[in-house]
Amino acid sequence: MKLRLATLALCAVATTAATSTAFAQQGPKPEDQIRYRQSIMNVMGRQFGMLAGMAKGDVPYNKDAAVKAAGLVDTLSTLPGPLFGPGLDKGAPTKASEKVWSEPEKFKAAYEKMQAEVKKLPAAAGDLATLKAAAGEVGKTCKGCHDDYREKEFRN
Amino acid sequence: MKLRLATLALCAVATTAATSTAFAQQGPKPEDQIRYRQSIMNVMGRQFGMLAGMAKGDVPYNKDAAVKAAGLVDTLSTLPGPLFGPGLDKGAPTKASEKVWSEPEKFKAAYEKMQAEVKKLPAAAGDLATLKAAAGEVGKTCKGCHDDYREKEFRN
Repeated sequence: MKLRLATLALCAVATTAATSTAFAQQGPKPEDQIRYRQSIMNVMGRQFGMLAGMAKGDVPYNKDAAVKAAGLVDTLSTLPGPLFGPGLDKGAPTKASEKVWSEPEKFKAAYEKMQAEVKKLPAAAGDLATLKAAAGEVGKTCKGCHDDYREKEFRN
Repeated sequence: MKLRLATLALCAVATTAATSTAFAQQGPKPEDQIRYRQSIMNVMGRQFGMLAGMAKGDVPYNKDAAVKAAGLVDTLSTLPGPLFGPGLDKGAPTKASEKVWSEPEKFKAAYEKMQAEVKKLPAAAGDLATLKAAAGEVGKTCKGCHDDYREKEFRN
């Protein structure tokens, strides 16, 4: 158990705000961080996909499921920022464009635009009409950022 | 936008409780479901890893970060169940043991044991002493299930 906790702790550290320098130096390899980034984006995409499906009428609207998914997307959206940081442009196959690292300020602005819209999702998800409006705006920010900063194929 | 929403909706459908049969038939491929399962487990593991690190004293305890991570682990723990369902034992490299599918009742019991402990995390995370106790119990259920149902290497 102790060893397991220690291992898990090491894995978690590099993306923790409270990271100490000593731990950051022992932090996970870029390939693990890239995988973590991809995992977060995948879960966000799937959960938002359900909301978008409800908004479009392809998935039956369910208030509880919508509110849960919206909260999850909101929380997850706060995680990947540092995982697009220096040194994480390579180390594993990734669709993240090199432009993320060559124009970080522009990428940050696009990322924050997404977060601003996602923040509105939980309050909007309790009603189909407000969900439709909010999901549409979130979807635009997903698409905008993916158009500019996500490659069609894996690179590296 | 419309096409994007439709695509996202299709991706989300097979794990949605509200799934209609028609949609399930058009649902994501096993490889995408397996990837989704792995993504969820990865994010859960990383977030719980941070909590375990705090419990062990390897990561400085931060109440807000702990409560946020605990809530996220709790919500994420409700998602992978159906992704260990029939037909998702192969289709992509996976560490999930074939025993998940050959002894589903036993696996379900182990899974529910994890969920029962994880449910206690959010309330426990607001204080380091209670977090330590709760994280220890969660960690045991992670380890128990991984020992029995997770291979060391990818199969398939």
